[in-house]
Amino acid sequence: MFICGKQYRSIWVDQKSNKIKLIDQRKLPHVVEIITLNSLQETVRAIKDMYVRGAPLIGVTAAFGFSLAMKQDTSVNSINIAYEQLINARPTAVNLAWACQRVAKKLQEIPASDRKDFSLTLANEMADEDVETNRKIGENGADLIKKIVNNKAGSSPVRILTHCNAGWLATVDRGTATAPIYEASELGIDIFVWVDETRPRNQGASLTAWELFHNKINNKLIVDNAGGHLMQKGLVDAVIVGSDRTTVNGDVCNKIGTYLKALAAWDNNIPFYAALPTTTIDFDLENGSEIPIEERGEDEVLMVTGKTDLGKLEKVKVTLDGINASNPAFDVTPSKYVTGLITEKGVIGANRNSILTLKK
Amino acid sequence: MFICGKQYRSIWVDQKSNKIKLIDQRKLPHVVEIITLNSLQETVRAIKDMYVRGAPLIGVTAAFGFSLAMKQDTSVNSINIAYEQLINARPTAVNLAWACQRVAKKLQEIPASDRKDFSLTLANEMADEDVETNRKIGENGADLIKKIVNNKAGSSPVRILTHCNAGWLATVDRGTATAPIYEASELGIDIFVWVDETRPRNQGASLTAWELFHNKINNKLIVDNAGGHLMQKGLVDAVIVGSDRTTVNGDVCNKIGTYLKALAAWDNNIPFYAALPTTTIDFDLENGSEIPIEERGEDEVLMVTGKTDLGKLEKVKVTLDGINASNPAFDVTPSKYVTGLITEKGVIGANRNSILTLKK
Repeated sequence: MFICGKQYRSIWVDQKSNKIKLIDQRKLPHVVEIITLNSLQETVRAIKDMYVRGAPLIGVTAAFGFSLAMKQDTSVNSINIAYEQLINARPTAVNLAWACQRVAKKLQEIPASDRKDFSLTLANEMADEDVETNRKIGENGADLIKKIVNNKAGSSPVRILTHCNAGWLATVDRGTATAPIYEASELGIDIFVWVDETRPRNQGASLTAWELFHNKINNKLIVDNAGGHLMQKGLVDAVIVGSDRTTVNGDVCNKIGTYLKALAAWDNNIPFYAALPTTTIDFDLENGSEIPIEERGEDEVLMVTGKTDLGKLEKVKVTLDGINASNPAFDVTPSKYVTGLITEKGVIGANRNSILTLKK
Repeated sequence: MFICGKQYRSIWVDQKSNKIKLIDQRKLPHVVEIITLNSLQETVRAIKDMYVRGAPLIGVTAAFGFSLAMKQDTSVNSINIAYEQLINARPTAVNLAWACQRVAKKLQEIPASDRKDFSLTLANEMADEDVETNRKIGENGADLIKKIVNNKAGSSPVRILTHCNAGWLATVDRGTATAPIYEASELGIDIFVWVDETRPRNQGASLTAWELFHNKINNKLIVDNAGGHLMQKGLVDAVIVGSDRTTVNGDVCNKIGTYLKALAAWDNNIPFYAALPTTTIDFDLENGSEIPIEERGEDEVLMVTGKTDLGKLEKVKVTLDGINASNPAFDVTPSKYVTGLITEKGVIGANRNSILTLKK
């Protein structure tokens, strides 16, 4: 997608230097800083410290991490080390595990001498696959948006509420929850997005608002508290969020606070969709209560980062010293509150029967 | 209640100087600054710019505003000017209107020569009444907490989740939602409070956490997104919030985001109470959809104030320039999600029949 009119992916191989590049998302929206991944260790840190985030992008970044490991050492031991370190970099996203398993398995099947070149080719292929997957999610989701347009009285825009960033920055390109929005907009549909701030890391304020702005989609930022009220007042036509992990029964694990928006959508008869690549479906988990929820450091709650009047990035503490915080990073939305799952294979019901049809 | 071991009210007449004093709550938790109200204009500004906030405290502050107006000019015209200016300082809180009507009516009934002294006496009486009201709310709410203790397996503390600040800072003393917590704690009950940050103005982080800390109640700060997940995980025994306005059918208007917590409480079979003085019940409104919701400036959403590493208060922008925000300040929780109303006259059901018994 676009940044200041120039097209980017969130991770790519620079054609001149042949180096792996990515946008350091921790500095957005104030600074667009592109960094180079030089080693497995740098890749693990980029995932762990959230230079990159979002289930699909984490998976592809891990694939590039394998290629950097293979550049150093093509042994089975090196594959195993890369696998262990990458798969443990973040606990919740299921397709980090999926990507690591896929790459490690393929590398083990081929001769050591082929592993260096093949691992980079595979990472690039997985990046392209992600873009194609998101394009299809966009097409399938845009069909739902077209239906909303057709059923909608009056000429106001279609108003989508989204939580966190399941945008192009969370993927390689186009995003999952945003893909239908970009697709619909490219089809000429007038669309408007309510962007949840998404405390504590403010991915809505710093990433989603930023990417919608740069891609000319009308939007307004709201605090995480506001969505329910906007739904009560008839100002939301649909909710579309991403999913870090979806279980066989259709429970959706996503950024903390998603569950509250799903409840409000349900209470106000507003469709609530999760947009996700089928790789984020965990066929080994029957329901969401089994998903381990990452508890992150309390400083994310106690502090907020932003730009001062003088343009300096500053971290400020919002409470007094001596106060502790709890910081669960995800929650689980029970399938009964999920209208449907927008996948690259079509829009399906959030239930066991529909989901099992996706299992190859 | 206590600040650093010393007892305070949120508004009071200083015995030495005979001046009206209040805590400038915009600077909490980082700075405890006590300011003097010298005129009606300063009082209107203190309400409008939220030096003071919270329905009960706003009402009492307005009463002191009348006394300052009467100090200058005891004419009927002066009463009318004070009434117009004070009642319009904030749109949502119903007992601002109640307090203004009560004071203006009483002043009009007495000779001009008595108005100066009487208005100050009345404001002090209203402050004392508020404290007494909250003490009773505390006693009635503590009875509910005792029942939770009795029904609770194990010896862990009773865990209350609260939103925004319906604490002693929102009243003259003891608070509404916090009164049962303080009362229960004084009775020796082990109590723990989950404090919602309460974006955009962060009243939870800056006021509720601050006052619980100074009054030795165990608490943890959470982002507004987290409460639903904590309820799903069985970590919340009850939700107690305040109410700015309650309608005849039991709908509760309170700080934006309250509705989302009520939905989560309902979904997890957790009792959800609003604690409120009966003066905040609007007997003229049948249901909450009729309540005008204050839309505040977008800067509250776009910016966050806190303390830097160097101890300086700083305002930082959390999104990029060019992004707009929407900032509805309150929402309405439908009565069907409200387990009960904790009032100074007892705990009653959030329904028409129960509420009408309170009408004198």
